[in-house]
Amino acid sequence: MKKLKFTFAGGDLRAGAAHEYIKSLGFLSDTFLLEKAESIKKCDKCIVFPASDVYVLPLPVTRDNVTVNSPLSDLSLSFDNFFSMLPKEASVFGGMIPDEIKNKAEEAGIKLYDYYDSEEFQIKNSVPTAEGAIEIAIREMPVTLFGTKSLVIGSGRIGRVIAPLLRAFGSRVTVASRNHEAAVWNEIYGFDTVNTSLISESAKDMDLIINTAPSRVITKEVLSCLKKDALIIDLASRPGGVDMDEASLLGIRVIWALGLPGKCAPVSAGRIIGSSVLNMLDNM
Amino acid sequence: MKKLKFTFAGGDLRAGAAHEYIKSLGFLSDTFLLEKAESIKKCDKCIVFPASDVYVLPLPVTRDNVTVNSPLSDLSLSFDNFFSMLPKEASVFGGMIPDEIKNKAEEAGIKLYDYYDSEEFQIKNSVPTAEGAIEIAIREMPVTLFGTKSLVIGSGRIGRVIAPLLRAFGSRVTVASRNHEAAVWNEIYGFDTVNTSLISESAKDMDLIINTAPSRVITKEVLSCLKKDALIIDLASRPGGVDMDEASLLGIRVIWALGLPGKCAPVSAGRIIGSSVLNMLDNM
Amino acid sequence: MKKLKFTFAGGDLRAGAAHEYIKSLGFLSDTFLLEKAESIKKCDKCIVFPASDVYVLPLPVTRDNVTVNSPLSDLSLSFDNFFSMLPKEASVFGGMIPDEIKNKAEEAGIKLYDYYDSEEFQIKNSVPTAEGAIEIAIREMPVTLFGTKSLVIGSGRIGRVIAPLLRAFGSRVTVASRNHEAAVWNEIYGFDTVNTSLISESAKDMDLIINTAPSRVITKEVLSCLKKDALIIDLASRPGGVDMDEASLLGIRVIWALGLPGKCAPVSAGRIIGSSVLNMLDNM
Amino acid sequence: MKKLKFTFAGGDLRAGAAHEYIKSLGFLSDTFLLEKAESIKKCDKCIVFPASDVYVLPLPVTRDNVTVNSPLSDLSLSFDNFFSMLPKEASVFGGMIPDEIKNKAEEAGIKLYDYYDSEEFQIKNSVPTAEGAIEIAIREMPVTLFGTKSLVIGSGRIGRVIAPLLRAFGSRVTVASRNHEAAVWNEIYGFDTVNTSLISESAKDMDLIINTAPSRVITKEVLSCLKKDALIIDLASRPGGVDMDEASLLGIRVIWALGLPGKCAPVSAGRIIGSSVLNMLDNM
Repeated sequence: MKKLKFTFAGGDLRAGAAHEYIKSLGFLSDTFLLEKAESIKKCDKCIVFPASDVYVLPLPVTRDNVTVNSPLSDLSLSFDNFFSMLPKEASVFGGMIPDEIKNKAEEAGIKLYDYYDSEEFQIKNSVPTAEGAIEIAIREMPVTLFGTKSLVIGSGRIGRVIAPLLRAFGSRVTVASRNHEAAVWNEIYGFDTVNTSLISESAKDMDLIINTAPSRVITKEVLSCLKKDALIIDLASRPGGVDMDEASLLGIRVIWALGLPGKCAPVSAGRIIGSSVLNMLDNM
Repeated sequence: MKKLKFTFAGGDLRAGAAHEYIKSLGFLSDTFLLEKAESIKKCDKCIVFPASDVYVLPLPVTRDNVTVNSPLSDLSLSFDNFFSMLPKEASVFGGMIPDEIKNKAEEAGIKLYDYYDSEEFQIKNSVPTAEGAIEIAIREMPVTLFGTKSLVIGSGRIGRVIAPLLRAFGSRVTVASRNHEAAVWNEIYGFDTVNTSLISESAKDMDLIINTAPSRVITKEVLSCLKKDALIIDLASRPGGVDMDEASLLGIRVIWALGLPGKCAPVSAGRIIGSSVLNMLDNM
Repeated sequence: MKKLKFTFAGGDLRAGAAHEYIKSLGFLSDTFLLEKAESIKKCDKCIVFPASDVYVLPLPVTRDNVTVNSPLSDLSLSFDNFFSMLPKEASVFGGMIPDEIKNKAEEAGIKLYDYYDSEEFQIKNSVPTAEGAIEIAIREMPVTLFGTKSLVIGSGRIGRVIAPLLRAFGSRVTVASRNHEAAVWNEIYGFDTVNTSLISESAKDMDLIINTAPSRVITKEVLSCLKKDALIIDLASRPGGVDMDEASLLGIRVIWALGLPGKCAPVSAGRIIGSSVLNMLDNM
Repeated sequence: MKKLKFTFAGGDLRAGAAHEYIKSLGFLSDTFLLEKAESIKKCDKCIVFPASDVYVLPLPVTRDNVTVNSPLSDLSLSFDNFFSMLPKEASVFGGMIPDEIKNKAEEAGIKLYDYYDSEEFQIKNSVPTAEGAIEIAIREMPVTLFGTKSLVIGSGRIGRVIAPLLRAFGSRVTVASRNHEAAVWNEIYGFDTVNTSLISESAKDMDLIINTAPSRVITKEVLSCLKKDALIIDLASRPGGVDMDEASLLGIRVIWALGLPGKCAPVSAGRIIGSSVLNMLDNM
């Protein structure tokens, strides 16, 4: 694998960090559509589309379903154009690739892989997500995490990282899960547990609620049980886990925090993209 | 002690939180010079100077050495005036009381106690200080705390709280102390250790340096060893622990963070004032 | 479910503890074939086979494939006999039920469930197993766990409990797994990681090796890399994870520790049987 | 200091381990009165009294106040004899030196230092003591530490090591101290706290009580509050912290565990002696 050449095309600080990471492992790497990125050396910025073995597109791969997402470039590259220039046998990676683009690639006979779907990416990304959530909690609450009661909804990847962190701060943590086995593990790890369908009762003592579950779990009923000064941090992607209208009506503060890795730790987030792509290449 | 009446005079959100805390324990409590504090109930705001057994002044007690520090009031109260209105036998507490004011009180036969000097206050205040420092570190670094190397200088109260927190995030933590016994304890707690006088060598690998020692420990020599993208968070009170001119010359980022408890967790900081005053009264 | 009547038949201290646990939750419960168990009240010991809704047999359910395992009884009960006396509709639970007995039950139209196979049982049992392994390590090593290097082979249930415990003692822990995702998680949790197929290299520094993997992972090659005073604790069931002949030849100490829950924490082990049976009943 | 020559005279496995440790740091070292110690190389065993710069005697230094404690030797060495043979300027170290011997040394103009009194020794020795206590708790209790309630009496060196270990096992830990500041720290570290003079109330829920306080804290009154199946592990040196007659009357199990480092981790205990002596020499 050591001889592969990479090109990182489009994206933000994360693309630069992924590029540096790949280079640090001894691979050749260029960038394209990143000419305004100050963190990238001039000599690594290509002006014409570079030939490579592996092309890594950003997360998200596009914002308009037509061109590659490239906020740090004055140029614009359509996927049609991109696909037409690709060398044969090149592998192409991107994050959150819409079906439309996937189909277009398939028609063009291009191998397109989504690193956002890889288990490694999702696990590793839970770390900057959890750190970002902790930062928000410290910043937004008028009390210390120490001494609070907190509820983490969901016992997936993010929940597994965030719950021990909250406890390390001296918060008394309850973890809600739908799954009996997850609950048994959470007990062994020393957390209070509750079934996600029964959180109303537990919710009433909570100072902080962090939702990691990808569904509308913080309903009107749950909201009506909360203390007025409770803080909700919602990490669920659209449409989110909180009934926002009701929360607003009740005056309960909700912070809907999406894309924390890119905002809170772009360099780490970039390295995670790099290592996930490498691992996917390894397993091809 | 249960029958004591308290007055909180001047200060900010912390005074309101201390007042609520004292009331929650069953004491009577009023406020004065806090009429603009939204968190305090109208009926608890005195317009004329209230008679009390205990008066609690803010931290810091004054900013001009003449009047009580009262940013949430349109009124101004000089210490001369304050002392002249005090009931006999009243106990007066304040934080960071200048010698000038202490002397004035002594002349007037007033008992003036500084809660900022109490061990309980200092220990408890290390918690919001540490949380505030963690918030800064997450916010300001482009990488996650996970995977970093960090150096905590000083093994006093704040160091003892912040080092385990950094480790909980997955940072590899070195603790610098001047004291052999502190180093033995830090080893037992699983930290790497270094003598504070020898940190230059250790410093060169560090991504994050948090100084809690009250002296100029981050000298030109130490700074010259640091990575260019290292972040220094200095928690030392004036004049600070970092050679700022040199840091600026070298382009090393330093965040000098003072008064974190009041900024980052004012309600907890207020309760700490309340509990420290109570404990001082208990021990009189 | 609250009206069910239980009978615990055969077994050791664990049966008595499971019986007490079930009673403490408000169920009726008797015991049979446990007349010598001092921990069980006389009035709870049946002399004739009691009618019940649920019968719980011990772990292992039999040692001779003919009679119920009943070391605390002078009586002997064959499975033929047992099945012939069972009330219709009774549910029967046992641990590690041989196929022979399962088939016999099926022929007799008896519902026979193995709690040893339940995920809850296996997860919860990892706690007394891990504690027992720690006890052995402290007892058998001439050094403290603090300051050692240890290798936990396997990242399943037991590995997930034992690795954090070793770290809490101040051991530097490496976790070996075959699975890339498990390795990513172990990194996030702060452990050093190695692929199980490559442990020879890591093994050479280790003071303590705990094997939880159910296969012959500690081969001649691995053994030849070990320090002479390393201790191996093998938790793998027959035929075990260590090449015992080679270990003996090399003079390396191996402790093959099976059935730790029953030996090291029989009361907890009994409660785990009770709660696993209840959970299985719940899900029927 | 690098040129010093050491002799370890008398003692047990610990002396051999201290000797090896000192040699591993590049010093010369011999042993005397340890001829039966299998762990020591023949060439390191002196038959005639060796000339040295530093002599290290065992812990305890004597059992009869007349001769050096030497269970691994057929010889006997009186202190009179020992002192008469010492080279001028030699430094002599021992553990738990009785006043009688100290006086005799002073008369003879010999410098005699007690490493047992050094802070470093006491801190480091708390690690094998705590591990030994954990081993006893796991072995002697019929339940797992996980899920228990435990009380650690005393917040000194041993308490500071043992309380976090118990918590790591999933025990809910209360720490008793006499000192308000210690209690504040224990709260910050996440332990429940109680004043040592008020433990009767807390004691009634406890499954495990570990006493580290050097006084009779577990009185008749405390014992009368305990559950019948509670286990007490007493780490206090003579006369011990438990009213043993009363405990026996009430049928409460007490394990009085002295000298755990030498029993449970002799090699580590020996290294601790070695490093403490070195540190004392450093500070002379």
